[in-house]
Amino acid sequence: MRRVKLTVAYDGTNYCGWQIQPNGETIQGMLNRHLSELLCEEIHTIGASRTDSGVHARGNVAVFETSARMPIEKISYAMNARLPEDIRIWESKEVPAEFHPRFTKTIKTYEYRILNKTFADPTCRLNSLFCYNKLDVELMKKAAGYLVGEHDFKSFATENPQITTTVRTIYDIHLDKVGDMITLYITGNGFLYNMVRIIVGTLLEVGKGCYPPEHITEILDARDRSAAGPTARAHGLTLAQIRYPEWE
Amino acid sequence: MRRVKLTVAYDGTNYCGWQIQPNGETIQGMLNRHLSELLCEEIHTIGASRTDSGVHARGNVAVFETSARMPIEKISYAMNARLPEDIRIWESKEVPAEFHPRFTKTIKTYEYRILNKTFADPTCRLNSLFCYNKLDVELMKKAAGYLVGEHDFKSFATENPQITTTVRTIYDIHLDKVGDMITLYITGNGFLYNMVRIIVGTLLEVGKGCYPPEHITEILDARDRSAAGPTARAHGLTLAQIRYPEWE
Repeated sequence: MRRVKLTVAYDGTNYCGWQIQPNGETIQGMLNRHLSELLCEEIHTIGASRTDSGVHARGNVAVFETSARMPIEKISYAMNARLPEDIRIWESKEVPAEFHPRFTKTIKTYEYRILNKTFADPTCRLNSLFCYNKLDVELMKKAAGYLVGEHDFKSFATENPQITTTVRTIYDIHLDKVGDMITLYITGNGFLYNMVRIIVGTLLEVGKGCYPPEHITEILDARDRSAAGPTARAHGLTLAQIRYPEWE
Repeated sequence: MRRVKLTVAYDGTNYCGWQIQPNGETIQGMLNRHLSELLCEEIHTIGASRTDSGVHARGNVAVFETSARMPIEKISYAMNARLPEDIRIWESKEVPAEFHPRFTKTIKTYEYRILNKTFADPTCRLNSLFCYNKLDVELMKKAAGYLVGEHDFKSFATENPQITTTVRTIYDIHLDKVGDMITLYITGNGFLYNMVRIIVGTLLEVGKGCYPPEHITEILDARDRSAAGPTARAHGLTLAQIRYPEWE
């Protein structure tokens, strides 16, 4: 048996998220089905990030085992010939048997796009949030600065009883504005459920002037979801990259 | 009767182009139907640019006459509440009765996006052309330079017997590369049928090394469609802006 790592890019618009489920098409379901057909054996992928419905990715990771004899680097090409245009495999490579996409130290980068103008732009409606309130990007940058580092992000997560700790480290957050498009890039060692979207929802409140940037420290201290802003909509979010520093 | 000018943005993916037709949904058809419902009278719009199926716009212009009493600047908001998300009215304003969106001097800018990498990116598949052949952008820029100015663009147009002259002026072409995305911006006083897409198809040939940049002058001289490259696919093209210098 060989262990294979896929780098997967997708437009999440038409899928019920990553994780396979009985009703509705998912990214994992598509991968399992097409890999099984291609390799003539039943394939079960394990995903690095179980993205929500509507969230996109350019660098999600899926791992599976196979006894098929196809050259592993050819799997990406063969899969791209089978998959619909909204899913693409960017790389297929062999990894050691011990490699697990989730139980391994990772550095993840997410991207969130916000179109800030009077009227929406239909050409980017599927991968950006439209916001007509004028946002103060400088205030948002200042607020983001308070989130960098190791913190208990309990206020910035939808409750998940399966989790043992809500402490995470954010290595970097930065915001770029090009024309009317604000892009937030956030890199950390892991993210709690809905954490990026709640951070964006909270930074939007700061950008609109609902509270000052310093208020972020109070939200962190509260360790209470209701202290933070709303969860920003899924379609503005893209999982940009996952790195495995121990395996590079 | 008042004459109204709309600035229209749309994602052309799900439409059979601008111009109304018996079979298939069009941008003009959608505007006429929703304007007629909103203003309670039959409305017929005239478009500035009859974009092809799959082509997008951020600045197309539609003009119509109405006897309705609704404040004209409110029409954009009221229409956006009715239209699907892939069409948006960015502005509605009154114009003089003599204003015609096509028979008036214009400066048009188109944008064409080319994603140049080994594997396609699903998140931008609807508004960029994917090209896996490595493109030499410097050669493409040099080739584009030969097209600037007043020329007979007969070689760069799909034949159209209704047209009296194939001479047009290109004021500017420039190419930008950000990451793997190459964007071509082209501004001129008017474009022949398929002209931007044939120019892009030809510049792609230059970028791939099929012929040198200087060959563009021979293509212009030939005044023959078969001398130029293929017509690049519609979905990479966006009508970015239309200006009416005499009315500004």
